[in-house]
Formats: sequence, C-alpha cells, structure tokens
Amino acid sequence: MLTLKRLPIDTGHENVAFLSRACTVYHAEEFQSVPKVAVSDDRTTLLATLNLVDDPDLLGPDELGLSEQAFRQLGRPAGTRVTITEAPPPPSLDSVRAKIRGRALDPGEIRAVVADVVGERYSRMELAAFLVASAGFLTTEEVLALTRAMVETGNRLEWHERLVVDKHCIGGIPGHRTSMIVVPIVAAHGLPIPKTSSRAITSPSGTADTMEVLAGVDVPMNRLRDIIDRERGCIVWGGHMNLAPADDRMIAVERPLGFDTPEQMVASILSKKLAAGSTHLLVDIPVGPTAKVRSATEAARLRKLFEYVADRTGVVLDTVVSDASEPVGNGIGPVLEVRDVLKVLRGDADAPRDLRDKALMLAGRVLDFDPGLRGGAGRERAQDLVDSGAALKALERIVRAQGPVNPDDPLHPGAAPADKVHVVRSPADGTVRALDCERLSALARLAGAPTEKGAGLDLLCKTGDRVRAGDPLYRLHAALDTDFRTAARAADAASGYTVA
Amino acid sequence: MLTLKRLPIDTGHENVAFLSRACTVYHAEEFQSVPKVAVSDDRTTLLATLNLVDDPDLLGPDELGLSEQAFRQLGRPAGTRVTITEAPPPPSLDSVRAKIRGRALDPGEIRAVVADVVGERYSRMELAAFLVASAGFLTTEEVLALTRAMVETGNRLEWHERLVVDKHCIGGIPGHRTSMIVVPIVAAHGLPIPKTSSRAITSPSGTADTMEVLAGVDVPMNRLRDIIDRERGCIVWGGHMNLAPADDRMIAVERPLGFDTPEQMVASILSKKLAAGSTHLLVDIPVGPTAKVRSATEAARLRKLFEYVADRTGVVLDTVVSDASEPVGNGIGPVLEVRDVLKVLRGDADAPRDLRDKALMLAGRVLDFDPGLRGGAGRERAQDLVDSGAALKALERIVRAQGPVNPDDPLHPGAAPADKVHVVRSPADGTVRALDCERLSALARLAGAPTEKGAGLDLLCKTGDRVRAGDPLYRLHAALDTDFRTAARAADAASGYTVA
Repeated sequence: MLTLKRLPIDTGHENVAFLSRACTVYHAEEFQSVPKVAVSDDRTTLLATLNLVDDPDLLGPDELGLSEQAFRQLGRPAGTRVTITEAPPPPSLDSVRAKIRGRALDPGEIRAVVADVVGERYSRMELAAFLVASAGFLTTEEVLALTRAMVETGNRLEWHERLVVDKHCIGGIPGHRTSMIVVPIVAAHGLPIPKTSSRAITSPSGTADTMEVLAGVDVPMNRLRDIIDRERGCIVWGGHMNLAPADDRMIAVERPLGFDTPEQMVASILSKKLAAGSTHLLVDIPVGPTAKVRSATEAARLRKLFEYVADRTGVVLDTVVSDASEPVGNGIGPVLEVRDVLKVLRGDADAPRDLRDKALMLAGRVLDFDPGLRGGAGRERAQDLVDSGAALKALERIVRAQGPVNPDDPLHPGAAPADKVHVVRSPADGTVRALDCERLSALARLAGAPTEKGAGLDLLCKTGDRVRAGDPLYRLHAALDTDFRTAARAADAASGYTVA
Repeated sequence: MLTLKRLPIDTGHENVAFLSRACTVYHAEEFQSVPKVAVSDDRTTLLATLNLVDDPDLLGPDELGLSEQAFRQLGRPAGTRVTITEAPPPPSLDSVRAKIRGRALDPGEIRAVVADVVGERYSRMELAAFLVASAGFLTTEEVLALTRAMVETGNRLEWHERLVVDKHCIGGIPGHRTSMIVVPIVAAHGLPIPKTSSRAITSPSGTADTMEVLAGVDVPMNRLRDIIDRERGCIVWGGHMNLAPADDRMIAVERPLGFDTPEQMVASILSKKLAAGSTHLLVDIPVGPTAKVRSATEAARLRKLFEYVADRTGVVLDTVVSDASEPVGNGIGPVLEVRDVLKVLRGDADAPRDLRDKALMLAGRVLDFDPGLRGGAGRERAQDLVDSGAALKALERIVRAQGPVNPDDPLHPGAAPADKVHVVRSPADGTVRALDCERLSALARLAGAPTEKGAGLDLLCKTGDRVRAGDPLYRLHAALDTDFRTAARAADAASGYTVA
C-alpha cells in the first residue's frame, strides 16, 4: 500500500499521479509504458497518467502523489492508503476502431463511448480519434443516439412548467448580443426562459462574459430555481451544472483542432438544451461569407438535421436562417456590447438598428411558442414590451436577482470602455463594401476582450455607408499597453474593412 | 527572464515545463489555457506543456522547471536564462483540418505535416487527428507523398553497393523467425543484406529480440558499415538510427488505437526500407483467418499499393502472398525461436519443416534478385548454402561481428527455455483443426515473452495432426511465478487450439 500525498502541481485538464522511482511496493519502471493507472482505496478509484519522481524531498519511496485536480477529484484525505494498478483500456475503444474503419455504430455502442468519455477513461488522443472518425461520417440515427447519450450521462434540470423556452444562435458573428435583449422581453411576457450560456472560447465575448458586466453569472441551482419562479428569466453561466458534460470534453478537443461538423454541432446544442430542460427552442443559423455557415444549402442541411433530432427527442423546434454578412450591433467586447443592449432596451434614438431588429424578430419568434398568443403576434408583442419599458424593467429585476455588480444602480455597467483608443480610418474615398467577421473578432481578442471587459471594437460604419479618406471606420479600445500596441498594429495592417 | 531548473520528474514521452503560480515575470494564469509554450534561450527552443506549481521549495517564483526529458532535449545547463512564449499552432494543422473535411493533400502539404510531426510540434491528439482522418481515405498519390516525406525527414543510409537487398514480413504470425535464416543464406551467397529490425511492440518477439539471445543488436553506424563490408549481412535493432523517424511517432499513436490501414502500412514499411538504403525488397504478405491480412482480395490490394509506391521511389519490389493459417515453426518467444532457427541451419532431422520450407522459399526469392544467378535458381542455391553449412557459418560470423553473448561458443544461446513448464493437453480424441495466431501470441506474452527471453510456447502439434484426449498440445514456459500462474490459467481457459 502507498500513502496518498497532495502535490502542489496544477496539471490543467489532466489527472497526473506521481510515484517514486525508488518505490519498494511497486516496480516503478513497469508502470512507465502503461497509458493510465487506476489509483484506488476501498471506496473510490481515479484514472491518471503516471510520472516517476527521483527526488525524496518531493515524494517518499512509498508515497503516491496526486496533482491538485486529481487529488480533489479522488476526494480522499492525504495519508489515505491507496493501491495502483494498470488501468485496462475501455472496451468501448473497439467501437472507435469500428468507426475508424467506417462502420455506423448502434445506440448501445455510442452510449458506451460517451459514458467512458464522461468517466475520463479516454485520453485526449482517443477522444480525438473518435471525433475525427465521426467527422468523416455520422448517420442521422447516430446523431440522435449521440444526443441522447450526451443528455443521459449528465444532470437534467426539471422546471415543472408546461413550456420552457430558449433560443440559441450557432455563433460565429461578433457583437450580436441578442440573448440579453430576448431574455428580458420573453420574461416580461411571462414565459419561463432559463438561459444557460457559455463563456467565450474563441470569440471576443460569450453571453456569460457580457452579462457579467452587470451581474453575477455563477448562480447555484437552488437560487436559479427561485429566480425563474419569480422573474421568469435568467442569463447565467452553465459551466458548473454538469449539463451534457460529454459536450464540454468533446469541445475541448474539437476547438484546438478547429473542426465543427453539422452533426457534432446538432448533437452538442440539442444535448445541452435537453439537459437544461427546454421544451421549445428557437435556433438561429446566421449565413454569410465569413460566418460559420456559408451557403443556403449548408444552412438547409443543418436545419433538417436539427429537426430530425429535435422531433425524436421531444423538443419543439423553430429555426431562423438569417443574413450574417457583417457584425450585428456596434460594440464587440463585453462592455461595448452591454452599452448597445441597454440602448435597444431603453429605446434610445441612436440604438443600433440591426441589433434592435434582429433581437425583436427573434423574441417575436420565441413568443410565438405561447399558445395564448394569436399566430404571428409575437413580433408586435415584443415591440410593445420594449416600448413600454417592461423589458428593461425585467432585465433590471434579473440583474438584481442574480447579484448586481452595482447594487445601487443595477443597470450601470461595472466597467467603462477601456481608455487606450486607436482610431482606424478609411484609406480612401468610397463605399464600405464588406466587413470580415473573422478578422474583426481576432482584432477584438488581440485588444484584450473578453478578459479585459472594457476592451474591444466600436464600429462607426457598416456595409453600404459612404466614407471619405481619413474618416473613422471604428475605434479600438484596449486596457493594457501591450495589448494596445499589438492590436493597433494588426488593425492597421489588415482592418477587416473593404472600402471601394 | 526565468532561470532554468531541472526537476527530477520523469514525464515519459511528453515534454513538461513548470512555472510558479507566484511568478513575477509572467502572469502564470494566462498561460494555463495555452496548449503549448516555447521555452527559449538565445540558442535553442523547446516546445512543452506547462504545469503550474504552488510550492516555493519545488520551484522559485522566477524559475522555469523542466522535466527530465525536456531538460535533456533542451540541452542547456541549469541556471540558463530562458523566456517562455505561447507556441503558435503549426500552420500545417490547416492541412489536417482539410483532410478531416475529406480533401486530398498535395505533396507539399504532406511534407509540412510530416516535418512538424518529426519536429515534435504536434500533440498526440493532433497526430491522432491526422492519422484517423488519413485512415478514412488516402489516395495512392498521397501514400507516395507520405512515403517520400517520411524518408526525407530522417537519416538515409548509403552503402555504395550496386544491389542492397532486404526482406520484410508484414507480420501478425507468431514464431515465423525466417529473417534469422534468410539473412545468413543471402550473406553466404555474397549479396549485401543489412537487416534493421524492430523489437516486439504487441507480439511475443521481434527479430531484434530473438537475435539478442545470441548477439548484441545495438550496433553503432560505423561498425555496421564494417560488418556489411566483411560479412555481407547483419541483424540489428534499427530504433536508434533515426530512419524515417515520423514512422516511429505515428506507430506510437496507431498501436494503442489499434488501427493499421494498408495505406499506412505501405508508407511505414517502404519509408523505413528506403531510408535503410535498400534497392531490392521482398515483401511477404501472410494471409490467414487470424493473421493481419485475412483474404486474397485484401492481399492483392495491398500488393498493388506496394508496387505503385515502390515503382515511383526506385525500389525493385517482389512480393510473396503466403498461407498463414497457423504459427510457423514450433517455438514462440526469443529462446525457443532461436532453437528452431539453429535446427534449420544445422539441417537437424527434427527441424520444423514449415519454418525450413518458408525460409528457403523466401531466401530463394531474395537470391533471385542477383543478376548473376539463372532465373529461378535461387531456391536451389539457398538449399545448397544450408546443406553445405555455409549459412550456419555465416550466422556465426555475423554473431561474432555484432558481439556474441557467448564469445567461446557464439551459437550457444545466452539463455535456456524458462523452467516453469505447464503442459496444455487435448480435451478430446480427434484432429487438430485450427490454431489461433492471436490467442497463442497473447498467451506467449502472458508467459513473459519477450522480456523474459526463455518464456513462451513450444508447439507439439499442428493442424491436421491426430490426437487423443490428454495428449500434449504445447508446453508453456515461464520464468516468473506470477506470469506462470496467469498464463497457465489463461491457456487452460482458452488454449488457442481447436480439436474435433
């Protein structure tokens, strides 16, 4: 038996165990070529990669060290007596091999793969093998089975409501902060809309990052239930709720590899929404030359796949295929986006029209789920709720309930636009012909968004606007000197605007 | 700047760097989500995964720790001033994404991928993505480009000979130690045959493991050249020669994932042989119900792919498609295989006929490469070289040249069959109908082969033999008590023999 020791080493996503090369209980070298070891006491077991240690000060010969995350995950005190054994490879890897050879998997096989992924029994290499083989081809039945398996292997929220609505945008468009307008409108109408959002992974801001400018987004489950009971809406971070946890593991591999097939997108989005307890869902599919989906054909294929899986998992689904040739709204980055959102909800004359129109259209389509409304009346109802100030009040109540950053004035942002400002100007007289969504996202991130809440871009003109040489196209805001220099240089080199 | 420190932690195949969370030079948390960091001084750079450390005794705030292998690879002394930066992902990952989406890559793209693999700029996850996407489909042109790229990114041996011959078996059949018979026959004839072999990865013995029972196999390049000049043949381990090093990296991912497509097999084998300087190559493709290749159609496809690439890379290629319904020879495991090899070369009456016939056939086909021999005369010439004792003498000279385990008697094995013996007996009267190659390999490994040189199986009958209940089928040899118990129990549960 070995004695458990916590080592002050943070190994990120990976569980690592440490054994002294001078160990007298086990022949350490024997474990060196083993892919994973199982660390066990009489109650629990944890899989980890094994590293060998040659320093008696760091680890005694009969101690077993665990990295910070592994120690926490095992959940047993230092000094516990543990054993290690070679962890056998999970049998579901046979299904991964079959998938690599091009076979469709049955639901039982897919469930076994997903269960092993959630149980951390796959290495990142093995998970990549499954995902890449699945990117090659996945039947609609497999997408359905994958969605179900991802829901079944995590928590599932129950709201005890007849209707629980949600909206989701498949992403890729900077700015575009419609959720923070749609949620208060729908909540003001009285439909429950518990919105769980992500933080930015590759974008300049996720809905959770932007909401955080006004309120706390890390809300425990029991408080969340109260908030929905009273306020009907919320905008919180879903990361700690263990909803479709397989999705998080898969995204952690898909993002760095940079692929995102329609099949994996549908399984990812619908599993999260099913786990979050949605009964009615509006999916927004923006199509544009620099967006995630680039043609109408692609959008139609994606829509049909969403419908196939939604119909068989009991979600009422509506889709919007929208034009996405440029960013929606003027601000890109948390603080600048909040400013746009508040302008729309306050009915300010200078509120960005495109953001206002898109948000009202989406809110209308969500309200159309309400059997109490006359067909097609949603859009007008949404407009009324904004004009009357009811939606703005709903947002204020939601911010108060989640924990406002400024308790005295809940709608006052917790930060201002960052104060180092670089103005990017038109190189010539002409008309703005195109904005490159990918480029503008990259520049906003270079400027520091979303880590620096006030960093990002403030767009001063859009496609179709006439400009003269030297006219400002957008302002770049940064908080840190290094970010400012890097981002300004990059914007001058390639602004993301085409003027001709 | 940080101060370099060597940490006494062995992280296996992975380079790991350690930074204190209290670091004052860098904001440590910023690097936490970065896939890889580049550690640099003014002379050199190393890529590594970054772990954070919370213990000032282990790592000071302005020190950078490196794991054993990373420290060795960087090759700079402790105390060197180094910097860290986020390592940009290698641009060739765009080609991996294109491959995932199903596009054929051009030779330049493939060369860039292979160069980044050899330069350790791919994580195992990224390499798995490339290999799995390639397993989906790879055109013949891509196989050719891959083969060439794998040769170009490593060392290439030059022999200054008109003809340099070799033979290679694609594997999967236990026993089958033909190389140790073919090499001395061909060397006795006078054709240069510098055989570089692998150690066992998933089999009970590789040619290098078996040769090691008689001689050293880790021979430096300059001595190897002398040996070929004088003795014409050698049987050495090729692992340290940096021949097609991309192949080794790829195999390290393919083996645990357990896939091996014809395309990857051809690129792997031909790149190694081209790098080893072979001009003429005989490839043996065993076909059988429990072998790697299971049908004549599959064998024909594989043969044509070998021919396509060999023709375009200037290798003269001959192939043998052979029956492989059962192990070849009686011994499975290093010492037992050496015993069979010596019996054949000595012309002993009880030498295994199947091993003798197969080895003479292969040697004959290799000798047929010699333009000085009359077409088809190779087989008879091979027989003469065995009958005259010339082949046995050639093996003795090769063993002496490589460094004999027993200098006084070079052909005396360095170890005897292991002394714990379990006899597996026929459960019934009848005829031996089938031997399962996979099962018998697994049992030999459980018994301790190839780590324990004397461990393995000694087959006492083959397909077609009539047996009575209780007759011995094979003897299992093990050196260690634990191996013996496990292997004997497994053999009694499923012997690998079908008697009916």
